[in-house]
Amino acid sequence: MNCLLLPKDWQINNKADIDKAVITNKEQVTHVQQVLKAQIGDTLKIGQQEGKLGTAIIQKIDADGIHLSSICLTDPPPVKLDLTVILALPRPKVLRRLIMDMTAIGVSRIVLLNSARSQKSYWQSPLLDRLDEFVFEGLQQGVDTIAPTILLRKRFKPFVEDELPQWLSNQTAVIAHPSAPQSFVQYIKNQDQPQIICIGAEGGWVDYEIELMQAQGCMTASLGKRILRTEAAVNVLCGQLIS
Amino acid sequence: MNCLLLPKDWQINNKADIDKAVITNKEQVTHVQQVLKAQIGDTLKIGQQEGKLGTAIIQKIDADGIHLSSICLTDPPPVKLDLTVILALPRPKVLRRLIMDMTAIGVSRIVLLNSARSQKSYWQSPLLDRLDEFVFEGLQQGVDTIAPTILLRKRFKPFVEDELPQWLSNQTAVIAHPSAPQSFVQYIKNQDQPQIICIGAEGGWVDYEIELMQAQGCMTASLGKRILRTEAAVNVLCGQLIS
Repeated sequence: MNCLLLPKDWQINNKADIDKAVITNKEQVTHVQQVLKAQIGDTLKIGQQEGKLGTAIIQKIDADGIHLSSICLTDPPPVKLDLTVILALPRPKVLRRLIMDMTAIGVSRIVLLNSARSQKSYWQSPLLDRLDEFVFEGLQQGVDTIAPTILLRKRFKPFVEDELPQWLSNQTAVIAHPSAPQSFVQYIKNQDQPQIICIGAEGGWVDYEIELMQAQGCMTASLGKRILRTEAAVNVLCGQLIS
Repeated sequence: MNCLLLPKDWQINNKADIDKAVITNKEQVTHVQQVLKAQIGDTLKIGQQEGKLGTAIIQKIDADGIHLSSICLTDPPPVKLDLTVILALPRPKVLRRLIMDMTAIGVSRIVLLNSARSQKSYWQSPLLDRLDEFVFEGLQQGVDTIAPTILLRKRFKPFVEDELPQWLSNQTAVIAHPSAPQSFVQYIKNQDQPQIICIGAEGGWVDYEIELMQAQGCMTASLGKRILRTEAAVNVLCGQLIS
């Protein structure tokens, strides 16, 4: 947690006292007290969801929460990557970290897509109802205020055949595929950066899925001879797109 | 697990039958049976620790394990990154994944170093006795056979003042530091790729540590305005060094 985010409706609720707020979110309170070990008078890095970044001073800590004063939000959030990640719905166990990391790194749009290697039970996971929470954690980690757009697509074929082509009219897409003839780095050197990357679940995309995406104009690229966990692959690929 | 590794002493133990082996490792047996759902006659991707990569055929599956025949090891393992990662000893919870990922991605040498933000209890973790196991998992994930060198250094100052300078006589080092004036990508563009990267635990390096490393000739670079979890940062930084 590298900044504390205030809710987006904060000013509306506090018209009379617009440079003050009370932090009541349990994780935020714990972080300030136990990790930062902050005291009255200390300055905290804060932001407002969908708004700007800045600082505030701890005025009081009591049973209600952490009372902030002198809230000053002047800095725009960092620019996002012009990047959509289409991700085969992963095991629930890794979903939280994946959403957090993609949010922190600045991915603009995330599609969680069904795939042959995403088990049906993954779609029943209660964690799918907590995506906003993971995004919130990612924003506070990455010092950002703007959530990425997240789309859930439970049917592979209709998404690839009906939705993806519209995006591909002005964007390029690369499928991460270990047996692709060229590496992602070579692809970027030769063709410029793609705006969409498609990353499979553990075990990758199956041939049918690759072919259907290729038929819409997606290219394939590898990470070299090595095969990484989905989580690592997402971060490595995003790392190659940061300029 | 994208290849199954045979132990490095395999040929010695099997002189009479050098194209045969029996897989008894529990994780490997489970993977072959439950994830790959492989049958008698199927070909598996295998390798030998410290040796080559290749294939084998499943001859028999019984209570002893998975009997392989026609073992053929002809391909050299993938080239490693010319990279040492000096990592502040992280929380035990993330140690396994970090070691696995750095191994899979091909890091040559890993130093787990004490730092002000590595709690003393981290050094007592029983997971530190299981590093070979995490490396083994990483090799099987990344389809590699050669383990990285791992060094444990419990004292920051003696390491930085006595050991690091020898490495820096012919290598360059960059410290990942969110408030550095230049980004890692800019650094690579201007100065070429470093052979050593120094990555802090959650919360980063403290000023004293940065200054001591800088005094030995390390430079600093950021990942831009965003701050990532250690795990994500390691993968992002390595991703920027893959060519």
